[in-house]
Amino acid sequence: MTLKLYFAPGACSFVPHTLLETAGADFEPALVKLHKGENLTPEYKAINPRGQVPVLVDGDQVITQIVAIVNHLDQKFPDAGFLPRDPLARTRVLETLAWMNNTVHPTFTHVFMPHKFSDDAQAQAAVKTHGAKLYGGMLAELEAMAVQAGAGFLGGERFGPLDAYALTLLRWGGFAGYDPQGYPALWALVQRVAALPGVARAIERERLQLNVYKA
Amino acid sequence: MTLKLYFAPGACSFVPHTLLETAGADFEPALVKLHKGENLTPEYKAINPRGQVPVLVDGDQVITQIVAIVNHLDQKFPDAGFLPRDPLARTRVLETLAWMNNTVHPTFTHVFMPHKFSDDAQAQAAVKTHGAKLYGGMLAELEAMAVQAGAGFLGGERFGPLDAYALTLLRWGGFAGYDPQGYPALWALVQRVAALPGVARAIERERLQLNVYKA
Repeated sequence: MTLKLYFAPGACSFVPHTLLETAGADFEPALVKLHKGENLTPEYKAINPRGQVPVLVDGDQVITQIVAIVNHLDQKFPDAGFLPRDPLARTRVLETLAWMNNTVHPTFTHVFMPHKFSDDAQAQAAVKTHGAKLYGGMLAELEAMAVQAGAGFLGGERFGPLDAYALTLLRWGGFAGYDPQGYPALWALVQRVAALPGVARAIERERLQLNVYKA
Repeated sequence: MTLKLYFAPGACSFVPHTLLETAGADFEPALVKLHKGENLTPEYKAINPRGQVPVLVDGDQVITQIVAIVNHLDQKFPDAGFLPRDPLARTRVLETLAWMNNTVHPTFTHVFMPHKFSDDAQAQAAVKTHGAKLYGGMLAELEAMAVQAGAGFLGGERFGPLDAYALTLLRWGGFAGYDPQGYPALWALVQRVAALPGVARAIERERLQLNVYKA
């Protein structure tokens, strides 16, 4: 059995990257340079036709999509408690994970890759400005969740996918014009999460700076 | 215990609507008229601050997000087999469900509600055109899945959330300029799904016409 994770530094592939490190999994990290278009080569598209990261390869199984990879890793490493066992708590984590994945993440895509939504330069600029504005409101929602979490984590008492995704989303906020220090509870949570050994190893491999905001 | 589903005719709330009907659940359907802005009233926002459907209320629990509601209904009605029990098959269904929810669905949003992405009329028109083009490629991906499913369903041998979502997405294709009959395997699957008793009841309540394409 071999495990391989295709990831790009700073991308949402950070979520499964931290889970694998936290579980102490024996896996091969495969760096995909998005800025060099390595995700759009015929070789990569043979693995994931949609040209995205993350991709988790588990033996002969190729799994895409964060929600599915999280489910797979939760099943594979049950002791890590990535998803709560309690049915309602599990539903709640999936609820927030889905929102991060279908709303917050795509909103940032409008800021970071506006060319995905129009070929027209003016339309791209408009979409980018609008997305950046919406993104601030979403960071405020995440801040409220961090306040609620207190000294715990977003999914409960243990570190899980919501915390890793929140770190990624707050970090992206820096590129969208938001100082992470403007979200004190979230910023404290993210710094606490970043110090966890498994998360720290993923951050080191991806060479991530947590605060990329420039005033 | 009371179950209540807030839904809008033709929206993605069709997915949990069909699951509740298929499970034979005793639930109260609550129609939300999006075109009248009923989802943005203070009353509705007190239920779901994000102003979206679907919302499932189960006793004192308010659950949003399709992925979470599907997980909840799968746990609540285990005999319905909405999600496969086999771990890998379950991961596969979540993979496609996540893709429908974070990629295909938001792409249609660019076509149907371009004002969500810019206040500028020209940018809105550009975003709409671009989204409609991308949507065609996604329907082609769904067609390939329907071919693969053959006489079965998208998640395996039993009807589940992927089939209801596929019906919704192909129907939306009509609004985006795509004749559903251009996707023969998908159109056949959707018609077969529409004839299932639980799905047929949801279609009747929502007064849906499957083919809304106008040449």
